[in-house]
Amino acid sequence: MQQAEVRFIGVVHCDILRPEDAPACCDQSERVGVLEIFPEYQDGLLGIAAGQIIIALFWLHRADRQILRVYPRGDKAKGLHGVFATRSPMRPNPIAVSDLKVLAVDGGQLEVYGLDVINGTPILDIKKRMKP
Amino acid sequence: MQQAEVRFIGVVHCDILRPEDAPACCDQSERVGVLEIFPEYQDGLLGIAAGQIIIALFWLHRADRQILRVYPRGDKAKGLHGVFATRSPMRPNPIAVSDLKVLAVDGGQLEVYGLDVINGTPILDIKKRMKP
Repeated sequence: MQQAEVRFIGVVHCDILRPEDAPACCDQSERVGVLEIFPEYQDGLLGIAAGQIIIALFWLHRADRQILRVYPRGDKAKGLHGVFATRSPMRPNPIAVSDLKVLAVDGGQLEVYGLDVINGTPILDIKKRMKP
Repeated sequence: MQQAEVRFIGVVHCDILRPEDAPACCDQSERVGVLEIFPEYQDGLLGIAAGQIIIALFWLHRADRQILRVYPRGDKAKGLHGVFATRSPMRPNPIAVSDLKVLAVDGGQLEVYGLDVINGTPILDIKKRMKP
């Protein structure tokens, strides 16, 4: 087996509409939005509460999966890097990892701070963050 | 579209042979092993060097994807938690996120410290870690 199928557990709602408007990395973002978790996965949210920091995994559905080398943030002065040495959205499996602060929980809707992905981005996973 | 396909970019070689022998979380692991990146993806490694901390994403191929609630680390005293409030391998998309230290790079082979997955685990992605 050289591949597997990921299932979207939810979708992002926010006012970042274009990839070029997304903050470059989650720890620089002050953007707020909502993670909508689909009904069939909401049982997995038990224990998530306002104030927690979570790790969210997103599927960057607009990314080009064929690209293996990039200029980081488009800056040619930095030289070509392998995508695995960067946080470019371009990579064979365009999965983003973001630390987000939970502002509020309402059923399957998590209001979060720190978003760095565009409106409509599919959600793959949410995890507890182990480190402070 | 409610799903997507992930492609395995490589595989883990280490002496952790059973899930029950894997360290509970990456920041508690002192295990060393090798990330073998398949030839067609090795161009993406340019810029990764010994001494760096990387983020690796793994596909936990033995996990049960139907489970939405667990006792964290099997401890019933902690009560049932939604999998999204834990680091359990059981979750709809069994993707692990680990911080690893690169000890050596030899072509497509990265020797790393801090492994918490078993031998044979498929690799999905490697990223630059932005935080110290």
